[in-house]
Amino acid sequence: MIDLYTAATPNGFKISIALEEMELEYRVHHLDLMSAEQKLPDFLAINPNGRIPAIVDRDNDDFAVFESGAILLYLAEKSGKFIPSEPKKRSQVIQWLMFQMGGVGPMMGQANVFYRYFQEKIPAAIERYQNESRRLFEVMDAQLANNKYLAGDEYSIADMSTWPWVRTYDWSGVSIEGLPHLQRWVDELAERPACQKGIVTPPPSELSDEDRAKEIRKMVSQ
Amino acid sequence: MIDLYTAATPNGFKISIALEEMELEYRVHHLDLMSAEQKLPDFLAINPNGRIPAIVDRDNDDFAVFESGAILLYLAEKSGKFIPSEPKKRSQVIQWLMFQMGGVGPMMGQANVFYRYFQEKIPAAIERYQNESRRLFEVMDAQLANNKYLAGDEYSIADMSTWPWVRTYDWSGVSIEGLPHLQRWVDELAERPACQKGIVTPPPSELSDEDRAKEIRKMVSQ
Repeated sequence: MIDLYTAATPNGFKISIALEEMELEYRVHHLDLMSAEQKLPDFLAINPNGRIPAIVDRDNDDFAVFESGAILLYLAEKSGKFIPSEPKKRSQVIQWLMFQMGGVGPMMGQANVFYRYFQEKIPAAIERYQNESRRLFEVMDAQLANNKYLAGDEYSIADMSTWPWVRTYDWSGVSIEGLPHLQRWVDELAERPACQKGIVTPPPSELSDEDRAKEIRKMVSQ
Repeated sequence: MIDLYTAATPNGFKISIALEEMELEYRVHHLDLMSAEQKLPDFLAINPNGRIPAIVDRDNDDFAVFESGAILLYLAEKSGKFIPSEPKKRSQVIQWLMFQMGGVGPMMGQANVFYRYFQEKIPAAIERYQNESRRLFEVMDAQLANNKYLAGDEYSIADMSTWPWVRTYDWSGVSIEGLPHLQRWVDELAERPACQKGIVTPPPSELSDEDRAKEIRKMVSQ
């Protein structure tokens, strides 16, 4: 049994998608980011960084794992699924996973901050992050022109890591117009039952856009 | 023989440090970021994202690896050094490596952008990234209070990934005052010959601070 500590965000959805895809048994613990539950001592003992997602594997001496990229690698190892064992193909999955961790996630995250959450509208900052996100989308589009999935012919944890971010391009104010391969990939993954289940685990916020913006602002700044 | 495509930046230094620590034979190709060499077709064939660092392993069918975190994992696997084989300890190294890839690097990078490179001084943006960097420093300080290195008792690729960033705290305008464990770790790694060699491979820019700021601005925005 895996205990999943999460909230309704792209980083959280990566792990619920992976757990669904891998058919691992798990329990969801929905942290209330509005009341900063991710900063409470009990949770900091699981993730010293005080952010979601994190897991505890009850079948492996209560081993705790934080950072979504590390959780995906841990679960792929555990299940033996969605990362090849052949070293080159395996590295390619890790390369695209890192591309998401260091690029797509942080840049779309900052685009959201300045486009959606900052009271002060700072055009130079909004443009910076929207342009960088668009540039990363173009890199992905070129890769997906020649590959069914990000790291090649096989669906992998690199896709599970990236899709929950890219699908929210509109929320970040970034267009995917003129990127047909990226659009094809976004649409194909949206058809997967595990992706459909993952992005409502935990359920999305029922708050207004304004209150949702407040909630997310706390999350990205804490 | 490893071909290393790099420049004098924290992300580049991660890999020169690792190659020195692992005693792997390598050749340095210093890309001129000022003239956007990282966007030329020859380099895009190695790294479709058009950023340094990247490597090509001439002893493994010219296999190309991009994203510094993926390169570190590849080299650790290749050399059998600086990542434990025991699965839990191994995951702990990956967790702290991801903490750098998704946290320390992007946040200090954005602190640099707004503190050093943006013409327009935007106090809210400067503070946001300096505060977030300081918060991450505090998380590391707590970890290093109980552990010699980031992922435990053994020096690992997680340290090699993080040190080149943290040591430049002053350039980012972030203090490490009151964080004695982080300071101890910064100082200890600075004594390692491989770290000393790594941060001058390639040699630092001889530009003025102003021209250096211009150079780095191009790098972070391209």
